[in-house]
Amino acid sequence: MNKNRGIIIGRMQPVHNGHIQVIKKTFEEVDELIIGIGSAQLSHTETDPFTAGERIIMLTKALAENDIHSDSYYIIPIVDLLMNSVWASHVKMLTPPFKKVFSGNPLVQRLFTEENYLVSIPPLFDRNQLSGTEIRRRMIMNEKWEHLVPKSTAKIINEINGIGRLKQVAKKELIIK
Amino acid sequence: MNKNRGIIIGRMQPVHNGHIQVIKKTFEEVDELIIGIGSAQLSHTETDPFTAGERIIMLTKALAENDIHSDSYYIIPIVDLLMNSVWASHVKMLTPPFKKVFSGNPLVQRLFTEENYLVSIPPLFDRNQLSGTEIRRRMIMNEKWEHLVPKSTAKIINEINGIGRLKQVAKKELIIK
Amino acid sequence: MNKNRGIIIGRMQPVHNGHIQVIKKTFEEVDELIIGIGSAQLSHTETDPFTAGERIIMLTKALAENDIHSDSYYIIPIVDLLMNSVWASHVKMLTPPFKKVFSGNPLVQRLFTEENYLVSIPPLFDRNQLSGTEIRRRMIMNEKWEHLVPKSTAKIINEINGIGRLKQVAKKELIIK
Amino acid sequence: MNKNRGIIIGRMQPVHNGHIQVIKKTFEEVDELIIGIGSAQLSHTETDPFTAGERIIMLTKALAENDIHSDSYYIIPIVDLLMNSVWASHVKMLTPPFKKVFSGNPLVQRLFTEENYLVSIPPLFDRNQLSGTEIRRRMIMNEKWEHLVPKSTAKIINEINGIGRLKQVAKKELIIK
Amino acid sequence: MNKNRGIIIGRMQPVHNGHIQVIKKTFEEVDELIIGIGSAQLSHTETDPFTAGERIIMLTKALAENDIHSDSYYIIPIVDLLMNSVWASHVKMLTPPFKKVFSGNPLVQRLFTEENYLVSIPPLFDRNQLSGTEIRRRMIMNEKWEHLVPKSTAKIINEINGIGRLKQVAKKELIIK
Amino acid sequence: MNKNRGIIIGRMQPVHNGHIQVIKKTFEEVDELIIGIGSAQLSHTETDPFTAGERIIMLTKALAENDIHSDSYYIIPIVDLLMNSVWASHVKMLTPPFKKVFSGNPLVQRLFTEENYLVSIPPLFDRNQLSGTEIRRRMIMNEKWEHLVPKSTAKIINEINGIGRLKQVAKKELIIK
Repeated sequence: MNKNRGIIIGRMQPVHNGHIQVIKKTFEEVDELIIGIGSAQLSHTETDPFTAGERIIMLTKALAENDIHSDSYYIIPIVDLLMNSVWASHVKMLTPPFKKVFSGNPLVQRLFTEENYLVSIPPLFDRNQLSGTEIRRRMIMNEKWEHLVPKSTAKIINEINGIGRLKQVAKKELIIK
Repeated sequence: MNKNRGIIIGRMQPVHNGHIQVIKKTFEEVDELIIGIGSAQLSHTETDPFTAGERIIMLTKALAENDIHSDSYYIIPIVDLLMNSVWASHVKMLTPPFKKVFSGNPLVQRLFTEENYLVSIPPLFDRNQLSGTEIRRRMIMNEKWEHLVPKSTAKIINEINGIGRLKQVAKKELIIK
Repeated sequence: MNKNRGIIIGRMQPVHNGHIQVIKKTFEEVDELIIGIGSAQLSHTETDPFTAGERIIMLTKALAENDIHSDSYYIIPIVDLLMNSVWASHVKMLTPPFKKVFSGNPLVQRLFTEENYLVSIPPLFDRNQLSGTEIRRRMIMNEKWEHLVPKSTAKIINEINGIGRLKQVAKKELIIK
Repeated sequence: MNKNRGIIIGRMQPVHNGHIQVIKKTFEEVDELIIGIGSAQLSHTETDPFTAGERIIMLTKALAENDIHSDSYYIIPIVDLLMNSVWASHVKMLTPPFKKVFSGNPLVQRLFTEENYLVSIPPLFDRNQLSGTEIRRRMIMNEKWEHLVPKSTAKIINEINGIGRLKQVAKKELIIK
Repeated sequence: MNKNRGIIIGRMQPVHNGHIQVIKKTFEEVDELIIGIGSAQLSHTETDPFTAGERIIMLTKALAENDIHSDSYYIIPIVDLLMNSVWASHVKMLTPPFKKVFSGNPLVQRLFTEENYLVSIPPLFDRNQLSGTEIRRRMIMNEKWEHLVPKSTAKIINEINGIGRLKQVAKKELIIK
Repeated sequence: MNKNRGIIIGRMQPVHNGHIQVIKKTFEEVDELIIGIGSAQLSHTETDPFTAGERIIMLTKALAENDIHSDSYYIIPIVDLLMNSVWASHVKMLTPPFKKVFSGNPLVQRLFTEENYLVSIPPLFDRNQLSGTEIRRRMIMNEKWEHLVPKSTAKIINEINGIGRLKQVAKKELIIK
């Protein structure tokens, strides 16, 4: 149980190169990493197009592509709870024990700090390009996005026709409401 | 069980002439129609002023007014689930079996298409006037709205003092928060 | 809106002759009847085998079979809320306005009485045979049950292989838990 | 904030002399006491007849009757969460900060111990008579119960006709299900 | 039970002088006051930084500071229900019986009016300064805010480092999403 | 995406040799296996003592101990939904796509069969001994249980003092309720 284990949580809509860079970086500090898939209940919206299951397989393939061994991580879907002050406790319930939290999200930092966890802020990457928001924008606008995500992620998104889905759910409703 | 049955879902805040036109049109393609009242848990807000029960009675009277026989439809309130990818399954649970889905909403189209349903997009009407948003705006601004809804709907809204309710909940809070 | 309207609520697992007799009786006192399908979220268990949608279609056909006109009733699925003291309010939200409540269930009687509704207890029928519990027991034990339900209900249960479903979910788990 | 403050949680269905004795005892160890009303969402059942609001007023009056000053306690309703491992965190969210937990319930003891709280087991009283279960049984069977609860609690139960409610919801359903 | 009792509900993020002025004013009309802490499940956000427990203790101390005796009020946390038309019923479940409702919020006014409660609108204060929104803005911008809240509230906010928390959760996310 | 992938779901309270035998057997039919941890929200009760996180680590270690490579499986916690007819859809949302379902539970078999999945019943093992119920009974009664679970599972249970927890939550409440 008492491994040097850390946790990082992201919505991964979709998995992109920034996620992989940050995950690689955290392995300099921990032996095992829990990767939480945030807002796991969401899918089929403009900001959250992919299901938890789709994000789990994207991430698994992307880590394999980057030679991160499946022995060294746990991927856990985490649904939103809408009660911030019990959220850290909820994450703890769903995951193996961990010592360090990696997060660039000030709320996540705060919630774990108040529970006396050690919180690290991962280094900054080029946020203008490497963000889910930017990648989804490019997908909708038919701009180049494949170079911003792992090869295996682009392959999965194409297999499930993810671009088609994103474009469709991003359309305004046409007639009845 | 094996009727040629379709489904259409709308929030109907309130029922208006566009809904009735679309419903009539769908009867050219199906023998029986399920009419889902969406966001059934909402009421007393600027965008969703009426309760599910009020919307059910509005719709029942409006269909009678338009000589659509009560033998040929089912009205079913459907609460939001906040998990898009199980929503179609949730609708299925609450309704008699159906074969066709009628929807102008791209998300609804997508969710039922992914479950292998046949989805039709109803023809477009004059969306600028015939929308719940426009009708509620007119109600708040004391503009003419009655001609945009069935007579029986206008009657019910007046009986329950729906305009008073809408105006009150649309007001900004005055003192304490 | 101001019809002489009543409400009756039952789980209808499945619809049986006792339900139809009670419903007919209530029409001596009201012009329109709301029929609530209770525990609408449940299905596929030994005590609640059928989905809300299946129960809605059973009831619709059974009422037609008994010459009760679809103009005179509303069928509304009602999910459990697990907060008894707001339950009556929740029912009110989902239904057209009503004046009388018909119920043989002491809890339902109490909750509506505390909200100042007029509550009537329907007359007793032969409860030993005409109960969902007895009918489901007979279905599982391969005993005669069809004569206890409307013809159309028996037909639907056979079409959806309801007996097969009930027997399967009533089985003890065989291996892993 | 840094008072010597403790917490005790009970369903209080209804408040009885055992609760008051235990609460008095805890004041030997703390300056302020948080009294959590457990299963606050339940009411109108055989095991949980009273609403949270009714239990709050019972307890307030009973504490006044016993000269426990309203400056020294907080009464907080706590709904069930159905996720034991985040329950202590949920209680923390709803209450002022506390240092000691008083509980005779092994699960409550465990959950707070795992969160590193100091947990005390209150002394045993005559559990055969001083339990909610026994008092509710006596109420239903028309046996003497008033001497087991504070005078003010008996008065409130009579004012709201609590015995009538308990007897009614404890009855078996008579006809329809 | 039959006291002349009223209710007022606010999110109290944080408690400020406007709340205290309004509460004092209501005591001219009632003997006892229920003070509901709204959106009790929220905390750690820019609009709702404090937990229900923190708001309860802020309010208790502020009332003592203003010589409002703890015998005369009940503080009850109330979580959001997201079903407006059962909300008044939910509040009733959680609170001792009340006769008057004090609210400057049009929605709250409407919901209680529809349940036949007597609703009063408290007098207006200087809303530009005495609002939670303005006070939180000043906290984030390092402007003077302490004079807008009771002394005891300022003390508690400092003890729990509330400004630090608010500033942190109000920051934009820095890296991963 | 289009692997020959199956799913098996169990509560794993705790992981035992029967689980491992069944899992090994399923690998004769699939290349990859999703292992769902059922009732993931439960812990700290007599029937469900361990958290989802604890069960995930038990299972991970047990699979490694049995030379099942971490490349070939996904472990996913699945909370209960209390709506059987949308449950299969909920599982689908949380998991990578799968073709076969392995289950000895008649309800699980039914729900996936109705969604047109291929369902296999795993072979029977000595159910009298290899069941969570029996193992928890032995733990409480101080009987031999370690030989019924993987070595690594016994080690983890001892590290977290699982027997102490189980015994404590299985005790009857001693004083207050």
